[in-house]
Amino acid sequence: MKKVAVLGAGSWGTALAIVLADNGHEVRLWAHRKEHAETINDTHRNNKYLDVDIPKEITAFSDMHQTVSGVDAVVIVVPTKAIREVCSELNKWIDPKTTVIHATKGIEPVSLKRVSQMIEEEMDIHYEDVVVLSGPSHAEEVALRHPTTVTTSSINLEKAKHAQDLFSSDSFRVYTSDDILGIELGGALKNIIALGAGISDGLGYGDNAKAALITRGLAEIARLGTSLGANPLSFLGLSGVGDLIVTCTSVHSRNWRAGNLLGKGNQLDEVLEQMGMVVEGVRTVKAAHQFAKDQNVEMPITSGIHQVIFENKDPKDVVEQLMNRGKRDEMDDLAVLLKERYSE
Amino acid sequence: MKKVAVLGAGSWGTALAIVLADNGHEVRLWAHRKEHAETINDTHRNNKYLDVDIPKEITAFSDMHQTVSGVDAVVIVVPTKAIREVCSELNKWIDPKTTVIHATKGIEPVSLKRVSQMIEEEMDIHYEDVVVLSGPSHAEEVALRHPTTVTTSSINLEKAKHAQDLFSSDSFRVYTSDDILGIELGGALKNIIALGAGISDGLGYGDNAKAALITRGLAEIARLGTSLGANPLSFLGLSGVGDLIVTCTSVHSRNWRAGNLLGKGNQLDEVLEQMGMVVEGVRTVKAAHQFAKDQNVEMPITSGIHQVIFENKDPKDVVEQLMNRGKRDEMDDLAVLLKERYSE
Repeated sequence: MKKVAVLGAGSWGTALAIVLADNGHEVRLWAHRKEHAETINDTHRNNKYLDVDIPKEITAFSDMHQTVSGVDAVVIVVPTKAIREVCSELNKWIDPKTTVIHATKGIEPVSLKRVSQMIEEEMDIHYEDVVVLSGPSHAEEVALRHPTTVTTSSINLEKAKHAQDLFSSDSFRVYTSDDILGIELGGALKNIIALGAGISDGLGYGDNAKAALITRGLAEIARLGTSLGANPLSFLGLSGVGDLIVTCTSVHSRNWRAGNLLGKGNQLDEVLEQMGMVVEGVRTVKAAHQFAKDQNVEMPITSGIHQVIFENKDPKDVVEQLMNRGKRDEMDDLAVLLKERYSE
Repeated sequence: MKKVAVLGAGSWGTALAIVLADNGHEVRLWAHRKEHAETINDTHRNNKYLDVDIPKEITAFSDMHQTVSGVDAVVIVVPTKAIREVCSELNKWIDPKTTVIHATKGIEPVSLKRVSQMIEEEMDIHYEDVVVLSGPSHAEEVALRHPTTVTTSSINLEKAKHAQDLFSSDSFRVYTSDDILGIELGGALKNIIALGAGISDGLGYGDNAKAALITRGLAEIARLGTSLGANPLSFLGLSGVGDLIVTCTSVHSRNWRAGNLLGKGNQLDEVLEQMGMVVEGVRTVKAAHQFAKDQNVEMPITSGIHQVIFENKDPKDVVEQLMNRGKRDEMDDLAVLLKERYSE
């Protein structure tokens, strides 16, 4: 039995806290607001986020010092935009030997930093020791103990294995990986393709078009990721294909819904107003578009979605332009990248 | 404008004939039964298979000699079990310079031969010159000119490019590949995973479980394919991930439906009776299980499905056993195979 702190009491943080509690660990769940923590402790429910009883092994806190004192591991599950503030506070109290895991998907706008890089900048921790936990995982299903698989990844594989040991259970299977770059990029970039899948559905196209978009989209994020140093195999894994499938085929996905509205002919500002919340994929399109330019990588789908969102292009024209590009071999760019990688 | 023969007037053969006719080619559509050919010519409809008008550029035949005399290319689109008979008849009349393309997915039971191998055995053609056309493509959507992408693959890349030229259009995008082994295996083995996805849904599990099954299933067919000599990247492509997504997320898929019934607790013979038709995936599970044994490749999901179908095991127990295997690194086996491939 270990002591583990989970920072962030939204649906994903709460679900991960439940996995840890089921495994017999003492779990401290940190909520940003004091009243939120009190409600969780009083009612053993977190109704705003999850319709499930919260085990007694979980205690909620809103004081960071209390939350992390004496814990073996910290799991950070706050939105990308809160990462820096939470980590800077966490850094005041955390014991340097504590394993730091994060389960947040996203890329910081403008800086184009991944979450593990932001953590390194705000805390006295080496990038190599940060662990990411990522994979196809609706929080609701995890809370219901439906079978779920994820990957924990760190350059320091011992740390990834520590996270694997903490979380592994009958209904939560954890694989390890040492390619944190590929795992984080897969989790973030998939939102672009979810937008595209929504646009395709919004245009009234069928399963063939959506499968094409997902497959060719995957090839293009694998190309970008590999050019940045990631292992292309990671995009074949749970935080690549796996997460992509869940995101692109679920009508609950925020990014899919935004894309769907765009495909139906709405403008971006109308869509964002209608959604009333952040659509991560919109920011990710911008980031990936910039990455692709910097790395000189061809990303026709991302560029097409960028045209629809930011350049006011008709989605139908973009699809036509994608269908009529020069004739290609399916895998030549990726094959070249792989050859470079493995012939060293 | 070319003359092209399409052998097989089911839904997929008819849809491919329409793509060719739209591109201005003169198309001869071969039907097994004379009356079927006559109905198509009289009504310009093929109502049993597709709800769409058939262009005037398509003429139906039931005589093989008439069908293939003077054509530039032949496209074989008959069920796996009819391949040998049709090819042996075709071989009597075909000009040896004709490009031979097939669009049939499957593996021959017992012999474990792929379709291109069966073609070589029945015809005076080198295996290297056979082309396969494969990808995520519901025939109904192709007939409606919804955007669709496929891959044409041949060891003789010039032949694959010839097929690409014949089929490419505004709504039908064709990529080439020289890895016919990987493309054929992807198209056939995906049916195993569709069965598994159906079982998972039949058990009442959610999106997480299904995404896990698809992802880990893909990793294991990539492992098998690579050990047989295929390029692992092909499984990341249209006939791999792409076809898999369409098959596993469409409730129209025969294999998914069979798996669903198995997951709900039905026995195999009840399921097959209820379906009233061939379930390709059931035969493919047997073939892959044998391949895996011969090649000494670990395929836990295929083996689990084999247990459910042929060894009368409870699907719930199989899932539990899959979730509780030893702790793994996500990609180690595949990484080793890739390294071997590219370090030569």
